[in-house]
Amino acid sequence: MSRHLHLNAFLMNTGHHEASWRLPESDPFAHVALDHYLHLARIAERGTFDSLFLADGPQLWSNLAQRPAGALEPLTLLTALATATEHIGLIATASTSYNSPYNLARKFASLDIISGGRAGWNIVTTAGAEAARNFGLDAEPAHAERYARAAEFLDVALKLWDSWEDDAIVGDKAAGVWGDDTKVHPPRHRGTYFRVEGALNVPRTPQGYPLLVQAGSSADGKEFASRYAEAVFTAQQTIEDARAFYADLKSRTAAAGRDPEHIKVLPGIVPVIGATEAEARAKEQELEDHIVHRHGVANLERLLQLPADTLELDRQLPADLPPESAVEGAKSRYTLVVELARRDRLTVRQLIGRLGGGRGHLTFAGTPEQVADAIETWFTQGAADGFNIMPAVLPSGLDAFVDHVVPILRTRGLLRTEYGPRRTLRERYGLPRPANQHVQPAYV
Amino acid sequence: MSRHLHLNAFLMNTGHHEASWRLPESDPFAHVALDHYLHLARIAERGTFDSLFLADGPQLWSNLAQRPAGALEPLTLLTALATATEHIGLIATASTSYNSPYNLARKFASLDIISGGRAGWNIVTTAGAEAARNFGLDAEPAHAERYARAAEFLDVALKLWDSWEDDAIVGDKAAGVWGDDTKVHPPRHRGTYFRVEGALNVPRTPQGYPLLVQAGSSADGKEFASRYAEAVFTAQQTIEDARAFYADLKSRTAAAGRDPEHIKVLPGIVPVIGATEAEARAKEQELEDHIVHRHGVANLERLLQLPADTLELDRQLPADLPPESAVEGAKSRYTLVVELARRDRLTVRQLIGRLGGGRGHLTFAGTPEQVADAIETWFTQGAADGFNIMPAVLPSGLDAFVDHVVPILRTRGLLRTEYGPRRTLRERYGLPRPANQHVQPAYV
Repeated sequence: MSRHLHLNAFLMNTGHHEASWRLPESDPFAHVALDHYLHLARIAERGTFDSLFLADGPQLWSNLAQRPAGALEPLTLLTALATATEHIGLIATASTSYNSPYNLARKFASLDIISGGRAGWNIVTTAGAEAARNFGLDAEPAHAERYARAAEFLDVALKLWDSWEDDAIVGDKAAGVWGDDTKVHPPRHRGTYFRVEGALNVPRTPQGYPLLVQAGSSADGKEFASRYAEAVFTAQQTIEDARAFYADLKSRTAAAGRDPEHIKVLPGIVPVIGATEAEARAKEQELEDHIVHRHGVANLERLLQLPADTLELDRQLPADLPPESAVEGAKSRYTLVVELARRDRLTVRQLIGRLGGGRGHLTFAGTPEQVADAIETWFTQGAADGFNIMPAVLPSGLDAFVDHVVPILRTRGLLRTEYGPRRTLRERYGLPRPANQHVQPAYV
Repeated sequence: MSRHLHLNAFLMNTGHHEASWRLPESDPFAHVALDHYLHLARIAERGTFDSLFLADGPQLWSNLAQRPAGALEPLTLLTALATATEHIGLIATASTSYNSPYNLARKFASLDIISGGRAGWNIVTTAGAEAARNFGLDAEPAHAERYARAAEFLDVALKLWDSWEDDAIVGDKAAGVWGDDTKVHPPRHRGTYFRVEGALNVPRTPQGYPLLVQAGSSADGKEFASRYAEAVFTAQQTIEDARAFYADLKSRTAAAGRDPEHIKVLPGIVPVIGATEAEARAKEQELEDHIVHRHGVANLERLLQLPADTLELDRQLPADLPPESAVEGAKSRYTLVVELARRDRLTVRQLIGRLGGGRGHLTFAGTPEQVADAIETWFTQGAADGFNIMPAVLPSGLDAFVDHVVPILRTRGLLRTEYGPRRTLRERYGLPRPANQHVQPAYV
């Protein structure tokens, strides 16, 4: 089989552009409307996407005045979508800093069973003091400590997901023997961050465990991804940067003793599609015209850890910003924003315009052919195994992508034309079902 | 409107009888089959039940040899059922000892929105060292401490659910103002067990918050119920005990300053239905014949905190068991089992037979008329506001109840004949939508 694009639909409220809710077509209450997400899931299935994805943080983002705030909790929402969809993968973000492994492992195992093997977990360590203060802490744990906890969390979760062998259930009614207790393996884990004694109370699932996804691109993030991740979402502004990231991650993965084919790299793109290039640019401009700049300034000051009223709309960023290593928050996002502003010599106003349209992810604005061309170029020139599609406006932007770009990608042989028989999410991404750590391969 | 029965379907694997999985009709894998639960939910909606309910504990129960072990996590499973049902309430058990208020409040708020106001929370404190050892503890916290934490957990959860006023979302596109930040109220909670600073990241839900359900009948449990619970599941063996419990709980609720009509008492019953009384008894006997007694002995020894091999099948329980106050586990269940054994002078074998058919809940075996008579008597004589229906075998026992007992209850005017327009779970139970603690009533 030839190499195919993997497409993920990153769903967010009325779209990834922060002003999308202000367009006439948008419903300001869509962010908590089940029907909105059901509709998006069906569009994505029509486009034979591999998966849906929802971001998350356990705190109330931003202020309410600016844009839709609050959301349905991703695991809950994706579980509701599981019974209303058939093929598409369901990737929920959940934090290793603010969950217990036993609780979270159960929920993902349950979703994997309920969805017939379509669960994925976007593993995040959750930057920011706001989240920490919702969980009894005064400040966020240090970046390195969050990643150390994440690694131990994964270790425990994998032990839990493997705690039942696949054939632990016997179901022998005549003998009165339901299961085989010798095929259950309690983790008896005693580590730095966690002690977890008993086996999971969910049998092993269709995929064994959810597809493991990761999105941080800091040094710690890439190190973590090379050990655990099977798919990586990343924000890259140029094909050169994207190729460098791709090559780096594949080689780190090989160095970690894994097959580099078993980690799929998906840069985020914000497609803005028009029948003509001018129409696409007009759509972009319409969105930019709806940005309320005072909010953007406040957000930038928070990200860059500057005092309020430091930034001026029509000047560039201050020259003396600290290096990434001195930042305790979302490191890779910090660097992305600073580099974008420096590279293109953007004023604060221009920077806010760029960030408003996908928070630093690359916008491809153009005709369906131009968008398809860009996708093909990145895909065939070592920059991507697929894309994290982040429409500026939802649902219309996803509709436009599926109706106009997807047919071109299919004609070029880059994308499946139908799902075929039911398969697991890991199979869609071309990954093997993981072996159970307690079972010796039969050929040994 | 005349007083109506409230019926809850307590779903469990292939049924509440521990040997149900061994019957020819049962699927030994049903406990993790979404279709099994979809089928049960639809039967219960056909019977115009108020709600479905799933029990839970964050540990692997019992041993696999004996009977189906493991389960789909209740909030996850009920969320999957939400999109496949229309009217029925969805009550998930979750522990205050092994969850964070912020995480759990989000999940229930999300389910309440997704289901259109049909979420309920069965609040448990989770007895047992097995669960504790899955969350970093060596032993379970003391009974009183678990309840103190539960009370603070509720306090925080209620603050979180009220952190958005109902009209916090403005959606003013022209002005570029999405929400009103003055209508968001961060808890800023600093207590003994929890510190939670920020507002919930979910808007206020159709019900305000999920229906609050409670099931422990210990002194601490009843005290907790009188303060918070809107529905109570209870195990009562005789109508006298049930009337005493009912009167006690209603008067405690009044003493706590609440309307006693705002707490609904639902004893659990295990209906075993036959066309004749003899047929019902034969069904009971068939189930009892499938019990494997060695497992029952081990379970009893664990509950009574006796060393292994203390009990003998054809003798009664030892005379010198400790009082409930000396027991740290599931106090009300301990007392229920000991009193049942003493009252009816049961041998261990007989006790296991009784417990096998619903773990101490009352079995009503008989014709549909006899079962309906018993329900009517308890309902009209101050012993119950409705029932927690726990079929011995699933799905057939729920089918039998809905096909044969429900029509009689409807004819007698005891049960609704149809759902009518969509309503919230709290409305079904005849309870008012709670006011937001931050909003002054308009008439003040």
